[in-house]
Amino acid sequence: MKFTRFSVNTEVYTGVIENNVIKEVEGDIFESWEFTGKEFSPSDVTLLAPLEPNQIIGIGANFVTKVEEIPDTLPEIPVFFFKPTSSVIGPEDEIVIPAAINEVKFESELAIIIGRDAKNVAEEDVLDYVFGYTVGNDVTAPQYFREDGHWTIGKSFDTFTPLGPVIETELDPFNVRVEARLNDVEKQNSATELMIVPIGKMISYLSNVMTLKKGDVILTGSPVGAELVGAGDSIECEIKEIGVLRNTFVSAKQNVKTI
Amino acid sequence: MKFTRFSVNTEVYTGVIENNVIKEVEGDIFESWEFTGKEFSPSDVTLLAPLEPNQIIGIGANFVTKVEEIPDTLPEIPVFFFKPTSSVIGPEDEIVIPAAINEVKFESELAIIIGRDAKNVAEEDVLDYVFGYTVGNDVTAPQYFREDGHWTIGKSFDTFTPLGPVIETELDPFNVRVEARLNDVEKQNSATELMIVPIGKMISYLSNVMTLKKGDVILTGSPVGAELVGAGDSIECEIKEIGVLRNTFVSAKQNVKTI
Repeated sequence: MKFTRFSVNTEVYTGVIENNVIKEVEGDIFESWEFTGKEFSPSDVTLLAPLEPNQIIGIGANFVTKVEEIPDTLPEIPVFFFKPTSSVIGPEDEIVIPAAINEVKFESELAIIIGRDAKNVAEEDVLDYVFGYTVGNDVTAPQYFREDGHWTIGKSFDTFTPLGPVIETELDPFNVRVEARLNDVEKQNSATELMIVPIGKMISYLSNVMTLKKGDVILTGSPVGAELVGAGDSIECEIKEIGVLRNTFVSAKQNVKTI
Repeated sequence: MKFTRFSVNTEVYTGVIENNVIKEVEGDIFESWEFTGKEFSPSDVTLLAPLEPNQIIGIGANFVTKVEEIPDTLPEIPVFFFKPTSSVIGPEDEIVIPAAINEVKFESELAIIIGRDAKNVAEEDVLDYVFGYTVGNDVTAPQYFREDGHWTIGKSFDTFTPLGPVIETELDPFNVRVEARLNDVEKQNSATELMIVPIGKMISYLSNVMTLKKGDVILTGSPVGAELVGAGDSIECEIKEIGVLRNTFVSAKQNVKTI
């Protein structure tokens, strides 16, 4: 099932996409909802980020290029980071490059959406706590990474977390490919089996530290191939079973509104 | 005005404390609220963390011991980090030391609560966006800091962010002292003028990166004197104008429920 959030004029709706028709739903998609009977054509709506995350957690440098490169011993403490929820944008929204720099990095990722409280969950049980999946672009300004390893600012600018186009609830996350095309040229295309810390260990580990909550989004890392890009570039992040998340980059300098 | 959240039996209330009486309020304390007429005695209620934060942002190593030690040039990119909202507990709740370690660090801090969207705010205007202040304890397990500088896991365990006892809306944050007493012995006691990145610059800088939101909590850094402590220890974090935030430490090992 594919859940979507969308707007028509300024009104925001939640819906399910079936056979190229968006059927409005009301209620809490995580718990209890029903169809309202109202339908929309996808061409008449503006897709938004498919959820307003509770929190966003990412993992650093989590892909190898070949299965043989996956290390025998996993990092004792994996590199996790948070991104602010204020950084979320939806499909087709503009990614704003901060005024002081000229380039940022795209990072196409499988984003896991937690459906209910998860605490001390065993590796083999993690999917019981997953509501669904979307595509995330973990936009990053490495110019704002500190040399001593603190990434927070470089990950936190407004517009730095595009999510979408939909939440797919029926997906085998172990068997999808994470792709990115920059101005129509393929830059990333890796199977999720190339993750260093695989999804089971990742969510189990996190749940042993903190209680994961309904609406938490976990960005599972980006395949090899991410690049610095500039204003005017266009990025399509894709997982075929979910859809294409397309955004363009603009400069904060150009973005200044003039009268 | 001192806002509080509290429970009686399992019911959760919001209130204002005046003259040792808690007066229940209803509505959104950030925007519009009114007294219900119902009153409680503080001795009949359990105080909770005074808000459920939208997000929690901290700043690292932000105090010197003497004003003369404040560096002439501030760090180009200050060390900021996020803590998960699932780590929040209230006054008198137990801080749980993770099972694999025996000690954690307390860090008494002035916690600033943002009241409305703040984006690109000038230093001199930041207080216009502040709703109020509480005391925070930025509990930290440095054993889970990575050598390459990533702190996320060491800051993120459940129970690692005690907040309280109240939100004080009338405070001059530039003229308070941040204190901590470990088992009744003073360990921290510094004026907020000893901050390296002062409050105006801190919030202005953050707001130039991300849109700060209603309910965001900013932990402004901890004075010199934080220590590693163990199960059985008791910590009182205090800012006189706000109140005392007291918690005790227990081990996750001891904390395992038995039948």
